[in-house]
Amino acid sequence: MGMNQIKRIPKHIGIIPDGNRRWAKQNNYEKHEGYSHGILPGFKLYELMLEYGIKEATFYGFTQDNTKRPKIETESFVKAAVEAVNTLANKDANLLVIGNTASKVFPEELKKYANRRVNFGRGLININFLVNYDWNWDLLHAFVAKDLPKTKKVNLHHHIASSDISRIDLIIRWGGRRRLSGFLPVQSVYADYYFVDDYWPDFKEEHFIDALNWYQTTDRTLGG
Amino acid sequence: MGMNQIKRIPKHIGIIPDGNRRWAKQNNYEKHEGYSHGILPGFKLYELMLEYGIKEATFYGFTQDNTKRPKIETESFVKAAVEAVNTLANKDANLLVIGNTASKVFPEELKKYANRRVNFGRGLININFLVNYDWNWDLLHAFVAKDLPKTKKVNLHHHIASSDISRIDLIIRWGGRRRLSGFLPVQSVYADYYFVDDYWPDFKEEHFIDALNWYQTTDRTLGG
Repeated sequence: MGMNQIKRIPKHIGIIPDGNRRWAKQNNYEKHEGYSHGILPGFKLYELMLEYGIKEATFYGFTQDNTKRPKIETESFVKAAVEAVNTLANKDANLLVIGNTASKVFPEELKKYANRRVNFGRGLININFLVNYDWNWDLLHAFVAKDLPKTKKVNLHHHIASSDISRIDLIIRWGGRRRLSGFLPVQSVYADYYFVDDYWPDFKEEHFIDALNWYQTTDRTLGG
Repeated sequence: MGMNQIKRIPKHIGIIPDGNRRWAKQNNYEKHEGYSHGILPGFKLYELMLEYGIKEATFYGFTQDNTKRPKIETESFVKAAVEAVNTLANKDANLLVIGNTASKVFPEELKKYANRRVNFGRGLININFLVNYDWNWDLLHAFVAKDLPKTKKVNLHHHIASSDISRIDLIIRWGGRRRLSGFLPVQSVYADYYFVDDYWPDFKEEHFIDALNWYQTTDRTLGG
């Protein structure tokens, strides 16, 4: 099915780029070397999303749980995250970084993009990047807010740390695992999930096209 | 693969029994007639779960969103929920019903099982049943609690309305859709998802066995 047949374009896509370490092992690299091979695929996907008119995309960078991994791995994925943002700064996107900036592992270089959207170039797409993210931290933000109305009519989404990230229509996960691993639980409640067996560094255009074509076959009931 | 080869048994399985209305249409029934055909499959699955030593299972009954459907449909799935519980009362399970009891659509007959676990017979398995459930209502429960500590060290799971429902290992959804539709967002963050194309009233033992066999191939990192 070509681009002309794709009529329902998801407004917001969640991207879980998993399998970097397994890809590295398979290709005779050290595990931690996998992360740097995940940057270029992200920009290939970025270009495709512009081409198809996607308005918002959220990339799962790394989580607080991930930072419990060996130091050499943590350093490698933090470095890859910073490099990805520095590359994006020369593109046409509006960047919002969401994650716990209070922790030492949150990279200093990314603090200027945290919790506020920053425009790059022509700002053709909103890109959200989860950096040192933790789902419990995200939701708890609403609890510790002093001004939260004590009523049952509150829309929780408006009060969490990631409230500026909108509801997600389609989540694509690479690397063969069929789970969300704590990815934006509130924004994901009504999302459709598409799973790709290939590891993220082996990203191919057809993965994205297949996901969009599959999305055509779903309906959209928002729980109704 | 037979029962002997299944070594990793999920402790807690989430069940999303979707496709009752589509099954009804396909079988020349009125849409609302599908729900009553979803009761027997639930008890077939119950027996299988006992056989395989599953300790806890949560069934997605109906949601507050669902009750916006035509009155004849709402009446039918409420009736099916009550009938399912009345049948379970003669089995060997510990039942916990979770949902918004403050609403008029919450069935009077199920109030005695709401928010407290009730033992039936030999109590061989914990069965949770979501009745007039809403994910925003569930999470918001923690907000409106007066005694919530205003600290960032809180485990959100302990404070939500469904706090007595444990973390889920495996979620099985029937009916071909690949999404969670608001099913227990907190307990589902690390769950693996298995999707069955057949509609729920067409439940077959092999669906469950296939899901368990697939679960053997997953790992369990809890986000690490």
